[in-house]
Amino acid sequence: MNTIPLRAYERTVHFADTDAAGVVYFANLLRFCHEAYEDALAQLGVDLREFFGSRGLMVPITEAQVRFLQPLYCGDRLRVTIDPQRLDHSRFQLSYTLYRAEGDRVAVAQTQHICLQLPERRRVAIPDPLSCWLKSALEEGGDRTD
Amino acid sequence: MNTIPLRAYERTVHFADTDAAGVVYFANLLRFCHEAYEDALAQLGVDLREFFGSRGLMVPITEAQVRFLQPLYCGDRLRVTIDPQRLDHSRFQLSYTLYRAEGDRVAVAQTQHICLQLPERRRVAIPDPLSCWLKSALEEGGDRTD
Amino acid sequence: MNTIPLRAYERTVHFADTDAAGVVYFANLLRFCHEAYEDALAQLGVDLREFFGSRGLMVPITEAQVRFLQPLYCGDRLRVTIDPQRLDHSRFQLSYTLYRAEGDRVAVAQTQHICLQLPERRRVAIPDPLSCWLKSALEEGGDRTD
Amino acid sequence: MNTIPLRAYERTVHFADTDAAGVVYFANLLRFCHEAYEDALAQLGVDLREFFGSRGLMVPITEAQVRFLQPLYCGDRLRVTIDPQRLDHSRFQLSYTLYRAEGDRVAVAQTQHICLQLPERRRVAIPDPLSCWLKSALEEGGDRTD
Repeated sequence: MNTIPLRAYERTVHFADTDAAGVVYFANLLRFCHEAYEDALAQLGVDLREFFGSRGLMVPITEAQVRFLQPLYCGDRLRVTIDPQRLDHSRFQLSYTLYRAEGDRVAVAQTQHICLQLPERRRVAIPDPLSCWLKSALEEGGDRTD
Repeated sequence: MNTIPLRAYERTVHFADTDAAGVVYFANLLRFCHEAYEDALAQLGVDLREFFGSRGLMVPITEAQVRFLQPLYCGDRLRVTIDPQRLDHSRFQLSYTLYRAEGDRVAVAQTQHICLQLPERRRVAIPDPLSCWLKSALEEGGDRTD
Repeated sequence: MNTIPLRAYERTVHFADTDAAGVVYFANLLRFCHEAYEDALAQLGVDLREFFGSRGLMVPITEAQVRFLQPLYCGDRLRVTIDPQRLDHSRFQLSYTLYRAEGDRVAVAQTQHICLQLPERRRVAIPDPLSCWLKSALEEGGDRTD
Repeated sequence: MNTIPLRAYERTVHFADTDAAGVVYFANLLRFCHEAYEDALAQLGVDLREFFGSRGLMVPITEAQVRFLQPLYCGDRLRVTIDPQRLDHSRFQLSYTLYRAEGDRVAVAQTQHICLQLPERRRVAIPDPLSCWLKSALEEGGDRTD
């Protein structure tokens, strides 16, 4: 479905991710999504330290949404897939589906991103290899996560 | 506007809240919102340790959305207001507005919550004093945050 | 006791600070200490965003120790005091005592810091106003935390 | 060297682990150590959700120390080894060495733990399989991390 197919991101739920209700703290689900995004960038050959540094191009998140379907516990094995989409020449959206290893969906989420050039924070075009990864609206298909 | 008017929540942005882009990590904005919710509960007289423990009633977040308007830096002084609304007998929504001390909005967010009784996770009515805090749909007015 | 007496740092324990054992996650105690350090710097007139940025002078932590005396729960009111000491011209140590509002000590901790000049990471003298805050070895007195 | 040899723990440094100085926030090094401890327990067959839950046996950390040797950046690949030692029938110490993938040590750390039985928090013997993993004082050998 993606123009560049990537491995799904996998990680174990750590004790530090949980809260006194015994499950993963809600906002940490968005951390897991961002980790999956970083993992995708690394697979695309992006230097993460440079990409997420505070100079030159920046790609801040402008919006985020998450829907929680099932609680997650310490030790749970998690898998995150990303469906990437171009919104316009400088903006894109990532749609995440989080699965427990056994296969059930535990959450779905989206983040919207914009490409800005420092120091003026001027909108610029989505650079490669990120741009190659994004589906164009025309290629858009069926398996949306929400 | 609220049936029970509460103080806005205030806190300083800590170094641990920031990331290598030099600003607050995006998912931490939802932490700030949850802190404001905890502060509101404490003002309502709720025992936080019991409320957020893993026994009896639980009030998990089912959805969360956040829109980022301006970057936040270490040392920034933050103020969070909450507009609470009943969705039905067991569900409610909190709408947050985050301001920098100087007065500009830096983010808006919402969380949706459901009241469940353990161990069966059966839907139950929103208990007092939480229920008293929520506006009924009929009281609903003008200053929505989004 | 300090050459410049400062207000103790106070904050409430948040839900996000806790873990599935129902208490504050151990490493977060060191976050609370760092927040107290930031609060002390702000009281001394330091611009936190500049001080903790990634340019010019940096003051990394070289060692940290913490001893846990009592568990901390969501909603607990915490107070942190700092006993600052110069180790040599470029290094200093902060000794923290963490109290629950009712007065009992819940943890003690230390961090050691070194002043480095970027980009070469060359050792430099502790700058004012930080330097003024530190006790000299000669002034050193009685109420050590460990 | 250990009575039960385990795989070292490996993970990538995430963006959320970093701070506005561009490197990993100091207290997060102790999170990485705890993740390595969790990974070791999982390798020993321990059910993490039960082990770290808030009922029955609890194994709180009583002290922690960490020494920082080199900064860590987003995207760095990290490897953590543990040298486990029994202190007495109810207490043990874990000594961690953190390496960057290229092989240089970036930090060393220790945590001390005690086995307590709830609800009275009475000291109890270290249970299996944890006990089997710990070296006795007599077996103690050469490659200590500090």
